[in-house]
Amino acid sequence: MSTLITNIGELITNADVAGPARGAALVLDDGVVAWTGAAAGAPAADEVVDAAGRAVLPGFVDSHAHLVFAGERGAEFAARMAGQPYHAGGIAGTVAATRAAADEQLDANLRRLAAEMLAQGITTFECKSGYGLTVADEARSVALAGAVTPEVTYLGAHVVPPEYAGDIGGYVDLVRGPMLAACAPHARWVDVFCEAGAFGADEARAVLMAGQAAGLRPRIHANQLGYGPGVQVAVEVGAASADHCTYLSDADVEALAASSTVATLLPGVEFSTRQPYPDARRLVEAGVKVAIATDCNPGSCFTSSMPFCIALAVRDMHLTTSEAIWAATAGGARALRRDDVGHLGIGARADVIMLEAPSHAYLAYRPGVPQIAAVWRAGELAVDHLAGSA
Amino acid sequence: MSTLITNIGELITNADVAGPARGAALVLDDGVVAWTGAAAGAPAADEVVDAAGRAVLPGFVDSHAHLVFAGERGAEFAARMAGQPYHAGGIAGTVAATRAAADEQLDANLRRLAAEMLAQGITTFECKSGYGLTVADEARSVALAGAVTPEVTYLGAHVVPPEYAGDIGGYVDLVRGPMLAACAPHARWVDVFCEAGAFGADEARAVLMAGQAAGLRPRIHANQLGYGPGVQVAVEVGAASADHCTYLSDADVEALAASSTVATLLPGVEFSTRQPYPDARRLVEAGVKVAIATDCNPGSCFTSSMPFCIALAVRDMHLTTSEAIWAATAGGARALRRDDVGHLGIGARADVIMLEAPSHAYLAYRPGVPQIAAVWRAGELAVDHLAGSA
Repeated sequence: MSTLITNIGELITNADVAGPARGAALVLDDGVVAWTGAAAGAPAADEVVDAAGRAVLPGFVDSHAHLVFAGERGAEFAARMAGQPYHAGGIAGTVAATRAAADEQLDANLRRLAAEMLAQGITTFECKSGYGLTVADEARSVALAGAVTPEVTYLGAHVVPPEYAGDIGGYVDLVRGPMLAACAPHARWVDVFCEAGAFGADEARAVLMAGQAAGLRPRIHANQLGYGPGVQVAVEVGAASADHCTYLSDADVEALAASSTVATLLPGVEFSTRQPYPDARRLVEAGVKVAIATDCNPGSCFTSSMPFCIALAVRDMHLTTSEAIWAATAGGARALRRDDVGHLGIGARADVIMLEAPSHAYLAYRPGVPQIAAVWRAGELAVDHLAGSA
Repeated sequence: MSTLITNIGELITNADVAGPARGAALVLDDGVVAWTGAAAGAPAADEVVDAAGRAVLPGFVDSHAHLVFAGERGAEFAARMAGQPYHAGGIAGTVAATRAAADEQLDANLRRLAAEMLAQGITTFECKSGYGLTVADEARSVALAGAVTPEVTYLGAHVVPPEYAGDIGGYVDLVRGPMLAACAPHARWVDVFCEAGAFGADEARAVLMAGQAAGLRPRIHANQLGYGPGVQVAVEVGAASADHCTYLSDADVEALAASSTVATLLPGVEFSTRQPYPDARRLVEAGVKVAIATDCNPGSCFTSSMPFCIALAVRDMHLTTSEAIWAATAGGARALRRDDVGHLGIGARADVIMLEAPSHAYLAYRPGVPQIAAVWRAGELAVDHLAGSA
């Protein structure tokens, strides 16, 4: 079935050839974008949707999320807001809850969060393991994730679990040995939390190179809580993305700019941990490709709202509204090495957001306000608030 | 018809006697709260709603909003985010658009925003005039507002309109003379924007005292853009609320603490204008009663989301999550001198929010995520997302 979306107030395609910004139309056919152009010249379609001047943009691509877990950390959040600093150790509580949970419980939580994301316009998302940290619990985590998204990341190297306290070498051997062997068939990516309190540069290299040897592609948590080697390791191993990038040296920025590694910024984390925001302006001006992602997880950032992250990126990371939308769509796609999503060029997957607003800028201009009017995923209408708005 | 809401995970009543926090129930009957207590002892009711462990709290009371206007200022917002400072002059563009608009257009915009607020849990809201600034345009503004809320505020003294440029005295005479006479029958409150670029202390006193003489109660925009006399004028005239309070001297804090004037904080404004946040902790610790409101308006803050404002109040104004909820409910009610809303004590109006979360803290823990599961207004179910969540 084909769908013509017409009378679009502002169409953002992210495609190389800029389409008409106003009075535009878009045809979705057989799950892909079949046509874009001026509404007056639009071809016929099985179904016509009148955008009535609303803005239309590509579905959001969330390239960093941790959705396989049990339990919650509301009390830790409240304590942090009352002045306690964030540190990687809080993850241990979620690990214990996740290990204790039945598959069905993990699956239900994961699908609930995935549905929340879709309702807020996220049509592609990455999902990491990393709260199991045993061979069996990591294997079931990546298997569960694989049932909801193709972008599955094996993050056995999230933190060193309690039973390996004092034996990081022993744990890294597990992660790059039997745990990797159990997880690699279900995953596309391998990731490491390279940070003081988690894993250093040598451990990160060892895990990422073992993952590559098993057919996985590398990405990395880098430079979140302080300066460190994460970004350099990312560039060295050809990671698709270095995520967080909150504390960057001049050499880090230069290395990113000279590489194809995307800097994936996660402003919800800085919001929820009251840390300083990364300097997105500096990165953009240095020529680094920037993505924005939610980092949805129960500890450092429990938002699943890309619109909220876009508002923070504009207000606190000093991206323009256009740059923020690009980072949340095409930037995320590049961080996942995908060229079929994150844009609305001809042939792209028909993942489309219609806003209850005339311009993309409203996502920052009206922070916190639900403004997703409709979402199509692969051409199918998946979220529809249009009926009630006539 | 009576409704029993049972199996509540966390019940916040704001009533003097603390109800049981967990395993609680609530009965709504004839539009008011009829009973609260342990679920096991709940009386029968016509209808039973299983909260399934969700949190229940009073409907939000938004004591500061500007919803009667036409046009939008997305371009001004984008320019501000690109580095231009906010100043009161931007209001003039909205004044021109509002004057040019038909009644039907103003009414449709107002009702759209009121519906947005309700969907986000706001069950009582104040609404100001102030974008008309002629006798006829202010009069129609308060009349339109009065059709959607009893909390109507006459804000003829918002800015000096272009046709009175250089003649602030002449405009103040209009505001406290024929414009007041035309508006007072439709309003409950009188307000002044007391700020450099708008009205000084003498003008503010003149307008507020004239309003009081016409039967209106005073409230005031004070100390938003810099230090100034607004808070002192508020206390002097016995204003119900001094709103913004971003720049306060020690004497201002002391004056508020010794008065019954509420400090209404509007963190969405600081977010959307990139200004420093007011020091809510200092106010609470000095004994000042604090409210949080949206200030929804097309210029300095176009959010209608109280949950977003609560998240900012916790993150950036250093309120605890409990203090922030109090400020958004009971605090707002106090700023409107209402004792029938903002709490769930016996006999209170049955304005109730059920969250898609086990605790009020989730409004800050999960910023940007739509978490309003259901809203009752005067006992009637007005927003219902429960059906889809089973």
